[in-house]
Amino acid sequence: MVKKLKLEELNRLSIEEAASKPKRPVILVLDNVRSALNVGSVFRTADAFEIEAVYLCGITACPPHREILKTALGATETVQWKYFRNIDEAALELKSNNYLISAVEQTDSSILLNKFTAAKKQALIFGNEIDGVSEEALLHCSSFIEIPQFGVKHSLNVAVCVGIVLWEITR
Amino acid sequence: MVKKLKLEELNRLSIEEAASKPKRPVILVLDNVRSALNVGSVFRTADAFEIEAVYLCGITACPPHREILKTALGATETVQWKYFRNIDEAALELKSNNYLISAVEQTDSSILLNKFTAAKKQALIFGNEIDGVSEEALLHCSSFIEIPQFGVKHSLNVAVCVGIVLWEITR
Repeated sequence: MVKKLKLEELNRLSIEEAASKPKRPVILVLDNVRSALNVGSVFRTADAFEIEAVYLCGITACPPHREILKTALGATETVQWKYFRNIDEAALELKSNNYLISAVEQTDSSILLNKFTAAKKQALIFGNEIDGVSEEALLHCSSFIEIPQFGVKHSLNVAVCVGIVLWEITR
Repeated sequence: MVKKLKLEELNRLSIEEAASKPKRPVILVLDNVRSALNVGSVFRTADAFEIEAVYLCGITACPPHREILKTALGATETVQWKYFRNIDEAALELKSNNYLISAVEQTDSSILLNKFTAAKKQALIFGNEIDGVSEEALLHCSSFIEIPQFGVKHSLNVAVCVGIVLWEITR
């Protein structure tokens, strides 16, 4: 008979262990993300994949925030984050720290996600739920990633996108 | 200069085209999922990956529902779905249609997602946000899938899980 693993069997790190453990050199940039529930979900995913940091730009909500806490379920305590007034300031910091910047967006020169190879230090921009990644943000990018999609909508929830991209580059 | 693709450049299917196009023989089973926002997000992902159907069991909300519509953004019109009072009835139907059933759950005999090969006809059970996949549901499964996770929480949002698993088995 199969047995579900108990919480204590999951080899979960303590907050102290997680804080001191080296992270993957991947920085998620949420630029003008409207839904704080999505932001919280991204924090939770960033914790699961041991991502270095989440950069929150423009109108993106920051912790502490009721809706972020609701979906982050504590991950805001273990994932580093930083707020920038706009994407230009975030990109400046990323570039000065030698991060290559890519945007997850459907463009005329996007690489399909399954063909994408992450840089040694990789930043990934995710944009607004309605408008996607802004033109200003695209100017800072060295490449563009598209999640191949079929169907009618050709659009995924931004937190789902983050999960798929992080899984693919860390699998 | 990179150009974002316009909606009409995405090769999106019309609702009629999507309805008549053959789907992937994958059925998602949401068993006692609490959040209707998560259900809607799953519909949207199911549309993007051309999944055959979504089975909604137990307390899982069904369309039409305000919060499902909010996150499904129309995908409830193109993705087939069916409601079952409990997982036993859903499993009976799946087995009689020759679907192999797997649960996405951390168990003592789970296969890591990157090692998992989907069956020709594959059903995937996702469970409640707090309690995970129930013991009753696990009894119907021929295998168990674990998304390798690190960090403090070892838990991902259920809609994010669906996205990661669908991406992996269709990539």
